[in-house]
Parts: sequence; C-alpha cells; structure tokens
Amino acid sequence: MTSISPDRRGGHDALDPSPATIRDMGTAALEWVAAYHDSIRDLPIAPRTSAAALRQRLAEPLPVEGRDFAELLEVFRDVIVPGSRHNGHPRFFGYVSAPGTAVASVADLLASALNANLPAWRSAPAPVELEHVAIDWIKEALGCDPGARGLFMSGGSMANLAALAAARHRHCGDAVAEQGAAAHPAPLRLYVSGETHHSIHKAAALLGIGRANVREVAVDEHRRMDVEDLVRRIEQDRAAGAEPFFVVATAGTVSTGAVDPLSEIAEVARRYGLWMHVDACYGGFARLAPSARPLFDGLAEADSISLDPHKWLYLPADCGCLIYRDPETARAAFSLDAEYIRVTQTEPAEAFAFWDYGPDLSRRFRALKVWMLLAHAGARAIGEAIESNLDCARHVADLVEASDDFEMLTPVGLSIFCFRYLPPSARTATTRTADEEEIDRLNERILVALQQAGSSYLSNASIDGRFALRGCVVNYRTTRADMEVLLDDVRRAAKQVAGDAG
Amino acid sequence: MTSISPDRRGGHDALDPSPATIRDMGTAALEWVAAYHDSIRDLPIAPRTSAAALRQRLAEPLPVEGRDFAELLEVFRDVIVPGSRHNGHPRFFGYVSAPGTAVASVADLLASALNANLPAWRSAPAPVELEHVAIDWIKEALGCDPGARGLFMSGGSMANLAALAAARHRHCGDAVAEQGAAAHPAPLRLYVSGETHHSIHKAAALLGIGRANVREVAVDEHRRMDVEDLVRRIEQDRAAGAEPFFVVATAGTVSTGAVDPLSEIAEVARRYGLWMHVDACYGGFARLAPSARPLFDGLAEADSISLDPHKWLYLPADCGCLIYRDPETARAAFSLDAEYIRVTQTEPAEAFAFWDYGPDLSRRFRALKVWMLLAHAGARAIGEAIESNLDCARHVADLVEASDDFEMLTPVGLSIFCFRYLPPSARTATTRTADEEEIDRLNERILVALQQAGSSYLSNASIDGRFALRGCVVNYRTTRADMEVLLDDVRRAAKQVAGDAG
Repeated sequence: MTSISPDRRGGHDALDPSPATIRDMGTAALEWVAAYHDSIRDLPIAPRTSAAALRQRLAEPLPVEGRDFAELLEVFRDVIVPGSRHNGHPRFFGYVSAPGTAVASVADLLASALNANLPAWRSAPAPVELEHVAIDWIKEALGCDPGARGLFMSGGSMANLAALAAARHRHCGDAVAEQGAAAHPAPLRLYVSGETHHSIHKAAALLGIGRANVREVAVDEHRRMDVEDLVRRIEQDRAAGAEPFFVVATAGTVSTGAVDPLSEIAEVARRYGLWMHVDACYGGFARLAPSARPLFDGLAEADSISLDPHKWLYLPADCGCLIYRDPETARAAFSLDAEYIRVTQTEPAEAFAFWDYGPDLSRRFRALKVWMLLAHAGARAIGEAIESNLDCARHVADLVEASDDFEMLTPVGLSIFCFRYLPPSARTATTRTADEEEIDRLNERILVALQQAGSSYLSNASIDGRFALRGCVVNYRTTRADMEVLLDDVRRAAKQVAGDAG
Repeated sequence: MTSISPDRRGGHDALDPSPATIRDMGTAALEWVAAYHDSIRDLPIAPRTSAAALRQRLAEPLPVEGRDFAELLEVFRDVIVPGSRHNGHPRFFGYVSAPGTAVASVADLLASALNANLPAWRSAPAPVELEHVAIDWIKEALGCDPGARGLFMSGGSMANLAALAAARHRHCGDAVAEQGAAAHPAPLRLYVSGETHHSIHKAAALLGIGRANVREVAVDEHRRMDVEDLVRRIEQDRAAGAEPFFVVATAGTVSTGAVDPLSEIAEVARRYGLWMHVDACYGGFARLAPSARPLFDGLAEADSISLDPHKWLYLPADCGCLIYRDPETARAAFSLDAEYIRVTQTEPAEAFAFWDYGPDLSRRFRALKVWMLLAHAGARAIGEAIESNLDCARHVADLVEASDDFEMLTPVGLSIFCFRYLPPSARTATTRTADEEEIDRLNERILVALQQAGSSYLSNASIDGRFALRGCVVNYRTTRADMEVLLDDVRRAAKQVAGDAG
C-alpha cells in the first residue's frame, strides 16, 4: 500500500475536506434542494424506468480511486432523481407518504455533521435532552400523561414490535426473556381488527408469539373495531385456557383512515388486564386539527402509542416514535447489562439510557428535525395544514358524490378517500350488480394508466372485496384545486383505458 | 382555527419556504458545518454540563407559533453543540465511535430533501438500485459471494436481531412464526463467546429464544473463540436433547478488537448444521487494510454478516447493514402479505421488496451516503485511513511498552488498545500483585479526570477482572502525534489524581 502521511490534518482529501470544499459541496447540493422544492409540482410523479435501465447507469465495481463530488451530484441529479417517485408532489396520494420539509432536511444535515449518537445521556447530553423535549411536545400534542416517556425509532413497524415485546414482558415476567417462550406454555393472545397494520402480525411472528395467536376482531360499518366482538373473543379465549394480553387499537387505519373507539377499547383493556397499544402511525398528529380532535378521546389511556412523525408531521424518513404510559414496565423488557455500556452517573436524568426502552443501541439524532420543525412551524400551522388535508379528502368525496361517473366505496376516514370510476353502463342501479368484477378490472387498469401518466398518483384498497382507488392526503402542498385535477386525471385515464380496449 | 388559504403554493411559510429561504437556511447551516469541521480538533471533547442546566435552556411547552430558523440555529450552536460530545475529535477514543464525513452529511441533506422511502423497488426505483450497488460494493470489500444480498438498517443491534430471526426460521420452519415458539418445544441453543456483543443476548430475549439458551464458549489467550470448546458445548447440548442452531463469530470484539477464527468456526457450523453469523460491526471494513486482511479469511462462508458502516466506513449515524449469503432463507422469515403492500410487478428485480429481508417497512435512503462516500473517497483511500488507524493503535502500544509508567493489559486487536497507568509503587515486579485493586481504583479515577479535562477521551474495559483504560481508533483525523498527546494527557490526569489524593 502507499504510505500514510504523518499528519493528515492538512490533507484536504475526500475524507477530511477543507472548509472551502465543504462550502462548495454543500452549496451545490443546496442549489439542487432549492430547485427541487421549486419544481416538484411540475414533475411526473412516478418514473417510467426499469431495473435493467437503472443498473446500466449505476452498476459498477467498487471504485478504487475516488472521483469529484460534482460528478456524483450529477449522477444524483441525472439518474437518481428522475428514477425516483416524488413523494412530495401535491398529487401523490399513494399509501401514507408525506413530503418532508426543507427545514427538516437542513436539520438532517446538521445532525449528520455533528454526528451525535444517542444511546444514553452521557453519550450526547444536549441531544438526549432535546429528544426528551421533542417527545414532551408530541405527548402534549396527543394529550398524554406527563409521566409518559418515549423515544424515536426507525419507523412504525419497529415501534409496534417494541410495544408488543414490552407487553409480553409485562405479562410473562422475565421468564420468557430468560428461558424463552417455552417457559410460558399457555398460549398468549393478542387482538387486532382486520384493518390493523400487518407489522403487528410480523412482530408476533418474530417475537415467537406466533401469527396464529393474533385474533382478528370484527369491524363495524365504519371499519372500526367492534368492541362487543372484542369482549366475546377475549371471553372465549380465557374460557379455552389462553391468555389475552394485548390489544391493538388503530387511530387511522391504512386502508380507510378509520379510528377505532379508543375509550371503549381502553375500558375493555382495563377490565381484562390487557396492554392497550394504539397504532397512531398515520393518524396520531391529526389530534392537532380541531375537526379530528374528538376522535382521539381515550388515546392517553393507552399503555403505548406508536407514531410516524415521518408521516403527518411532514418529516423526511426515517422517524418513528413510541410512547409508553409507564416507562418502567418497558425498561424491564429492554434493559441489559454489559461492561461497555455501564453507566456510572448517579443523577437519574444523567444515568438515563434509551437502550432501556427499545431494541437499538446506536441511535441517530432524529430529535433535531422533530424539534426544528415543530419550533419553526409551530403547532398552529401544522394543525392548520392537517386540517387542510382533511378538508381536501372531504372535498374530493363531495365532488365524487356530486358526479355520476364516480362513487365512494366507504366514507372518508381522516384524510383517506376510497372511490371508483363507473363506466357509463354502470351508472344506473339496474345494470350494476352484474358488473362488479368488470368494474374492478376497469379500475385496476385505470390505476395503472393514472400512475403512468404522472400527474396524479393513487394506490388501491380492497373494500368489501371490491377494488377501490384509494388516496391519502398528508401533504401541506395539496390544495382543493389538486383534488379537482385528480378527478380529471382519473377521467382521462378511464378514457385512455376505454380507448385501449376499443 | 384560522382559515386555510385556498392555495398554499404561493404561501412561502415555514412548511413550504421559497427557494430563496431554503438557500438562506441551508447556507447558514453550511457555514456552521464548515466551521465545525475546521475547529473540531480544538474543542473540549466532552461537555461539562448537567441535565438540569440543559433542561433550563431547552425545556418549554409545545410552541403554538413558529419562530425564525435563525433563532433555532442559534440554539443549536449555543446550547446543543457545546452540550454534545464531539465524536469526530481526533482523540475521541471511547467505545467504537467514528467521526462521520462531510460528504456523507451532504448526502444526508440530499436524501432528506428527495425524501425517497425504500420499502420496495416500485416505491423508489433508482434509490433501491443504488442500495443494491452500495451493498455490492460492501460485498466486494468483504470478499462475499456474488449471490449474497443485503440491506441497510438502523444499526448493528437490529442487524444481529434480524440474523438471529432468520436463522431460527431456517431451523424451525414456519411453525414458530405461525404458532409461536411453543410449537418447537426442544430448547434451541446459540453460541457466543464472553466477548460477543450483548445485542445478541438482547435479541435472544426479545425473539422468545431466551438468554439462558445463549451458551458462552471459552476464549483463548487472545480472547478469540476457542473452537474446541465450541465443539464440546455443541456435543453436550445435542447429547442433552437441545438443538444447536446458531453461532456468532465476532470480527472485532468491542473490548479488545479480537477477531475469532472464522474459517474454523465456519467448518464447525457446516459440520453441525449451524447458521454462522459474523458480527463484523466494528471490524469488517478493516479487510480493506492490507495488514488486517488475512484475519478475515473465512468471512465469506458466513450465513450472515452484520456491519456498521457508521463505524469504520466513517459514516454519520445511523447506518447498520446485514448481508445474507442465501437471501431466500431470510425471505421466508420476514415476508408478509397485505393488500397495501401487494407488488404487481412481474420482473423479479422490480418485484423486489426490502421488507422481505428485515423488520422495517419504511426505510430511509441510507444508501446515498454509503455510495457517495465510497465513490468520492474510493476504496484505496478508505483502506489507507483504516491502515493508519491500525498503525496508531500499534504505535500507542509501542510507546506503552517502552515506558515504565504504563503497561498493556492485552495485545492490540485491530485498532483497540487496552492499557493502564502504573503508580511509582507498582513499577517493580515485587510490589505489584498486592496492589491490583488499588491500581484499578487509581485508573478509574484517572479515566474520569481524563474525560473531564477534555483533550483526550478513553473508555474502559475489564481485562481478566482488571480495570483497563481502553481506546479505539476509528477516525481518519487521528495521527501518531495524537497517540503521544494521549499518553501525556493520561500522565497529566494521573498527576492530578495523585494531587487530589495527597
């Protein structure tokens, strides 16, 4: 190998560039960031590309020698960006996908440059305190008890897994952690609805609880958990010798935006000694919007709440969050002991370690973007933006109801709308029942055509077995006018599909 | 609430600022980034602060109204930065904590602004392809088979957990995932050494395997796993009706940098049908340094390898990585099925989903910083920087050996050195055995004094029951001269402790 210079400090190379070089790289990147925000409304939402075409541009062996940052930024601008889906576009309504915010991107630059790592207080005193502040703000937004405590994580899947692990530990004690699940032979049972996010089933499989022990409770006509059915299943399982220990209520289901009856579920959880977890990943922050607030009554009674600030808090990925009502219970599930993480501080706040509350040890300074966004925008503006998103979803429903070529498949839940296009032959009641599968196929083709056209983007849902065009508004850029454009775009896609078929 | 403007596009507010505002915010942040990199060598490494003092500066209720970015940047500069430990300082030798790199911070700005989310190919075609490229480069750096496949994760703890979950699934089939761990009543056994990272024990507890089923294999005089003892324990467990299924070899232990005999362990794993996992979180990238390369023979035979690019690839947190030799096995452990993640693409590369290989659904575009750093610096420069880190650790050992006031407690392993200060009374062989505990206490006090002084930072390890001053060099800024300053700083701390005591 070549020789190492005795002191690299002066070596303004790629690993340790000079301040001038850092400014140059950053300014060039920033120029793209500003231009991207300025032009995002006019970009085709989804790329028309293929894996083969992208590989041809990107694949190469591990480079031995480095190359200029300018060259890499060019690849980013010319290949990566056009090959990306633009989740920040005001008419990207697919899944639950928020746009990010410029101030949060800048916060991510600062966080990476400071490179704080937040396993414990002593590792990063001020960043850890800022995470406490940001979590306290979120608790306030949700109306949680002051004694609750939480942390940021990679996302909702991990937050749901951690909540389930903490609940199992509370129920089984340390025996399962020490001896394995076999130490607790009675079958554990947890309760979800058919609308619950699948990460719960995945977590049950990973934790050794088993997907078969996830019991699916019926839903009412608004796709909210049927509390009577929940009670019935708990009673049945207890009678059969199984141990109910966990119930998941959802505050904003992914398919239709339904919010389960939180207070009633909390009452059942108390009665039967179940850990109540609320998956509020999508919907939780809608409590900041006055028109949605009453839906969240009972939220504070949950033992744990999972949230995705990278959804309706408009933050760039990743930022999940988990809040525990009784942090000490969680601590028992996650804490570990090893010489290299021994904490010698005696002041409780300074002996605090996040590894006692979740699966990670190294942790990125996610709190900076949460704090910066909330402090820069303020809760009022965020609540207004969420309220505007809710309004957009209701507006599209009004437009659909007033039309003769569309119909809603289920009422709007939070900012999610599910509807479908009706071909001329299906617009009168007499001809409709016969054509359900044909309408499904037509809407499936419309969805593909819409996504390919690039002006609006919906995803799909299955509503009582029917194929629904599904949209979710979680973007401060989206306006009522965008909802009108969306319906025009769907009509255009329908015309195109009809033309292709004809 | 106040009214929502009908079209927010023109509203250059905090959520959706104008390009000029984005440039202003970014430029101000960048100015700090450049200045921070320029001054980091001169900062006190660890803050002298308290939780109470920080709260007094940071705690406040959720702000209703927003405030200027400039004001927030001031809080960052005046409170957060001085209240942080500076992991990028060239004499921060604590734990395994790398400095980050400016180009990777800029990549994080770009990733957050683009806000790609990478659950699956269709969600982010070019970013997903870039993740494949970055993983391929890492595979090349490690000498992995071309058929191996991997993904980035939050960190090593999660990568170790995912590897263990995949191995359990391969051993037990889908029965445990479906019915829970009780469906497989024979006790599972996994093998670690006493030097293995504690995240394995934590994962065993979380997954329902149980910490008691983690068997600790003896180590040799270099703290590497004793392969004969491994075989003995496997045989014993099999004879007792337990099922050995997983062995963890470590390529760079956290305490002393030991690299387990990978080829020999691979042979044992093959013979007994165990899943071989290599925890290469700290050490893996040292394969790029010629002098360390032979230690990694056998690495490619592992069924899975966990890595932390946020350690010795000099990337800012977070960036963990997991590589599977046979990705299809992992797929069976993680894949799930739900309408909202249904993939309709028929081309295999375009139907690809990362959620089939790990616990997360939403995933940040971590690949951008990995790709940008490797492409900008090139593998040669990174290998040279790692080689220089190895040289620094060997240099401090030489200095220690040549001194009469220090002694090494174990040989240097990769870039980790463990030593202690000897008081005058302990510098001759006759007086030493009696004073071991006194020497421990003295070095503990020296460590605290050193950390508080702020010029050098070590952490500690326990070596055969003795308290060791422990350092790890994973910073391209660190030079041989820094190692000399370190020893002077320890001497100064010893003098101070002696003065305090006298």
